[in-house]
Amino acid sequence: MNTRSIGTTRWAIAEGYIPPASTGTSRELISHEAICVLNSGAADAHLSVHVFFSDRDPVGPYEFTVPARRTLHIRMNDLREPEPIPPGVEYSSLIESDQPVVVQHSRLDSRQSALALLSTVAYASS
Amino acid sequence: MNTRSIGTTRWAIAEGYIPPASTGTSRELISHEAICVLNSGAADAHLSVHVFFSDRDPVGPYEFTVPARRTLHIRMNDLREPEPIPPGVEYSSLIESDQPVVVQHSRLDSRQSALALLSTVAYASS
Amino acid sequence: MNTRSIGTTRWAIAEGYIPPASTGTSRELISHEAICVLNSGAADAHLSVHVFFSDRDPVGPYEFTVPARRTLHIRMNDLREPEPIPPGVEYSSLIESDQPVVVQHSRLDSRQSALALLSTVAYASS
Amino acid sequence: MNTRSIGTTRWAIAEGYIPPASTGTSRELISHEAICVLNSGAADAHLSVHVFFSDRDPVGPYEFTVPARRTLHIRMNDLREPEPIPPGVEYSSLIESDQPVVVQHSRLDSRQSALALLSTVAYASS
Repeated sequence: MNTRSIGTTRWAIAEGYIPPASTGTSRELISHEAICVLNSGAADAHLSVHVFFSDRDPVGPYEFTVPARRTLHIRMNDLREPEPIPPGVEYSSLIESDQPVVVQHSRLDSRQSALALLSTVAYASS
Repeated sequence: MNTRSIGTTRWAIAEGYIPPASTGTSRELISHEAICVLNSGAADAHLSVHVFFSDRDPVGPYEFTVPARRTLHIRMNDLREPEPIPPGVEYSSLIESDQPVVVQHSRLDSRQSALALLSTVAYASS
Repeated sequence: MNTRSIGTTRWAIAEGYIPPASTGTSRELISHEAICVLNSGAADAHLSVHVFFSDRDPVGPYEFTVPARRTLHIRMNDLREPEPIPPGVEYSSLIESDQPVVVQHSRLDSRQSALALLSTVAYASS
Repeated sequence: MNTRSIGTTRWAIAEGYIPPASTGTSRELISHEAICVLNSGAADAHLSVHVFFSDRDPVGPYEFTVPARRTLHIRMNDLREPEPIPPGVEYSSLIESDQPVVVQHSRLDSRQSALALLSTVAYASS
């Protein structure tokens, strides 16, 4: 394995929305949105996430550590500090890291009788 | 938070299609297509969107302001000026901004018994 | 509208698969895969598409013209010359254009009781 | 066809998850996750894939050859050497190749009554 880490230090996800209902009952099948982060490098990555809304100032930082050579799937529904993200509201996310990481956005929506999925690599900047 | 804004000023979405039917009845579950925009910067962003068709000249500009440090989810179904985008027709979008922004494309399709979702970061140019 | 065209001249879509069955009966709800192309420029774009398989030589070119300032959604199911793409087979696509264009990949899969969608911007090269 | 190969030699997929259940029974409709690779060039590409987890060291390399001018769709469910990837676990993938290739990530999830799909081009580095 090439030991250079892969990725960059600033990422944005313009679309954000936690579906306010679910047909699934297990944790895995409840509607949710996630930010998936890969830190392939040899140093722990410290992340600051800011969340932007349509009608008020951004909230953050939400802080996370992704250990060296680990992945972290951040479930947006679970955030509590500095405040929860309300379901049913449109938002965007800005992710900053002190180490290069790779970020992917995904959502599972089980509001209707079968789940729907989306996923896309986040917008990479530097 | 790093105060540099993130993104670029020209974006394209080659795929566009407003599903002409829905099984959902609430606004959130009606089939729709959206352009999600993040303006993380300190200045308001003024957007001009042009829509391209397969068989006639492009239409636009559709104009929007995304205030500083805000997100805007533009629902294509709702556009009225200079003219509505007809459902069931294939189109593409070109988004230009006077400030760097990040653009993501999404669709919710509830024509059949369960919704489907798609999302992808738009093509970024400069 | 900025009159510079947007995009690049070489694109690749690594994933390709035409679902071999459908629950939908209308043309729009039959399982299909599409390459969506935006030509925002002032000159017609001439496209050559080559299709790669896992177990035989690539097939092509499939040739298309996207007129100036138009979009074209190429439905892979409909290709006939030089030969149809068989359903149920994994393939990849390489798209080359003599003018800058933007390419997005999408699929509608209605094999089961509700449709599923995917879409992603293609890989851009130059 | 332009004979230059397209792509790059390092790719990352931050999101990974093999759904632990399926409603489909055929191989095609069983929940699965795939890495789709296009090698458009004239030389065989040798790939090393490393898989990262949240709570243990990465596993790999998983080794593959994508012959010249061929596509390969790697089904993550099928990996056996050096060890299977457990279903229901979050992971990330790092793909390295000795030739330029293009990589796309996809998943078919049939845990509920209708399948869901996702797909996105992987993050490209060099």
